[in-house]
Amino acid sequence: MAVYTDITDAELDAFLADYDLGRPLAFKGIAEGVENSNFLLETEAGRFILTVYERRVRSEDLPYFLGLMRWLADHDFPSAAPVEDRRGRALKTLRGKPAAIADFLTGVSVRKPGVQHCREAGEGLARLHLAAEGYPGRRPNDLGHAAWAPMFAGLRGAAEALKPGLAAVIEKDLATLALTWPRDLPVGVVHADYFPDNVFFRDGRFAAAIDFYFACEDALAYDVAAALNAWCFEADGTFNVTNARAFVAGYERRRPLAPAEREALPILAWGAAMRFFITRLADWGATPSGALVRPKDPLEYERKLAVHREAQGHARGLMLFEAEA
Amino acid sequence: MAVYTDITDAELDAFLADYDLGRPLAFKGIAEGVENSNFLLETEAGRFILTVYERRVRSEDLPYFLGLMRWLADHDFPSAAPVEDRRGRALKTLRGKPAAIADFLTGVSVRKPGVQHCREAGEGLARLHLAAEGYPGRRPNDLGHAAWAPMFAGLRGAAEALKPGLAAVIEKDLATLALTWPRDLPVGVVHADYFPDNVFFRDGRFAAAIDFYFACEDALAYDVAAALNAWCFEADGTFNVTNARAFVAGYERRRPLAPAEREALPILAWGAAMRFFITRLADWGATPSGALVRPKDPLEYERKLAVHREAQGHARGLMLFEAEA
Repeated sequence: MAVYTDITDAELDAFLADYDLGRPLAFKGIAEGVENSNFLLETEAGRFILTVYERRVRSEDLPYFLGLMRWLADHDFPSAAPVEDRRGRALKTLRGKPAAIADFLTGVSVRKPGVQHCREAGEGLARLHLAAEGYPGRRPNDLGHAAWAPMFAGLRGAAEALKPGLAAVIEKDLATLALTWPRDLPVGVVHADYFPDNVFFRDGRFAAAIDFYFACEDALAYDVAAALNAWCFEADGTFNVTNARAFVAGYERRRPLAPAEREALPILAWGAAMRFFITRLADWGATPSGALVRPKDPLEYERKLAVHREAQGHARGLMLFEAEA
Repeated sequence: MAVYTDITDAELDAFLADYDLGRPLAFKGIAEGVENSNFLLETEAGRFILTVYERRVRSEDLPYFLGLMRWLADHDFPSAAPVEDRRGRALKTLRGKPAAIADFLTGVSVRKPGVQHCREAGEGLARLHLAAEGYPGRRPNDLGHAAWAPMFAGLRGAAEALKPGLAAVIEKDLATLALTWPRDLPVGVVHADYFPDNVFFRDGRFAAAIDFYFACEDALAYDVAAALNAWCFEADGTFNVTNARAFVAGYERRRPLAPAEREALPILAWGAAMRFFITRLADWGATPSGALVRPKDPLEYERKLAVHREAQGHARGLMLFEAEA
């Protein structure tokens, strides 16, 4: 939850003057999205989300993200379409920061996904991957597998502070991941942050995905694996195989996985756990105290890493991602 | 801005099961109100604000507040009407805390009120005072003038820490206020927190007032005086007489002040500045670091106190609140 930038009524009026949206009827900061400031904006033309882009999002990446949201909305995927001003610009500036208006999407995210939510979310992710085909934007995954070892090099001390002995364990993981990382899997646009709080449901059905600000090009199965980490671990740290199989089955309703993709899921999930462990470790302690946001606990992903590490090389590793009976 | 209590989708579903509002279509924490957690709730029946009452609001006072909101909405004042569940209850419990649903009101609050906003806000406050006539609820002002000296007795050290020498100045103020405080002014229901962020405008016209959680019985002119402090000081600490006269003139469109009320405005405004200085001083340092809210600076009201102190006994004191030419 976050509102980093405070917008006055006068600033809002000046901002809206560029658009054909009529006068503002309601404007409220909302607790959604960790990286940016989001506002519910109601005008005579309807309801929207106004986003002011803060720290982590690089402004040079915003045309890629907004273009993708537009592309998805135009290709039958329920993504918030950016709204253009009278001169056709979706990316604007507000209080000196990049800002954009997008459609308001209804739907409610779930805190503790059940098996049916996982199935729906899996199908939604496949719809996203298919709808994004042909998107002309280009953005490599700057948090992809090649980035982990260099990022961790600067975080050894933080890892040791978190848990003595952890740095050596992570470095061994990184070496194994580098040696065994799957190549030649089908690549496309991945959401890369497909967590339960970024997926909306209505009446238990997939309704929309939001927050495309980590989207990039990578192996599609890597996106599935990262989502399994986000959707299918229980609070006690165990991996819910039933939910994972439902997620994959939902995904395969729309996009069946190739055999190589399915076989790669255990190591992709291990690597995806590494990615979130490393970025949470970097954020832990780096979040300013006035940010009105609590950094996420890196130990959650340290435990997920351990589950995947232990499963490697065992039949159990593959069994986690077997097809539903 | 505040979201102190985190509500899951499952908790929301269980909560809504008592109401005839249909299924939830959207649910977002919003940055509105400092004392409570507020959520935008959209259901098949419309849009609402769900409030979870936190720390400062005493649960035994909530029937008074919710009853007043209902009364005002039923008496042609634009206040959010509480929504009752199937058994006719407006005050409910969520995660062990008091909670209520009320209608969503459109409108936008202003950061830097202009003269026309002040006129409209004054008229809105008079409408509130008149609409509340006959409300059968009873609640004395527990932050009224009799409470200031006892409250400040525990805050001498905090005042000295803020500004050496301040405690003696405040105690002299308190003695003067106790001796000269006006009696026998018309009493009624006062909002008692009629600040710009609690007033909504649409197209520059008064649209609604929210946040009745300090409402109580006190002199109606005291409510006007407290509002003048909130609406008519410039950022540089000077009192904007033009805006103050417009506020009073707007008020008198609906409820002309009696001569005794008008004469009392300078000392009422001095006392109202004392009330907000003392409670801000109490909050300054007492706000937990994880509360996602920044305490308000007590020095803002210390400066307002100084303006009113200096104006007492001079013709200028009364001039501040003269009628518009």
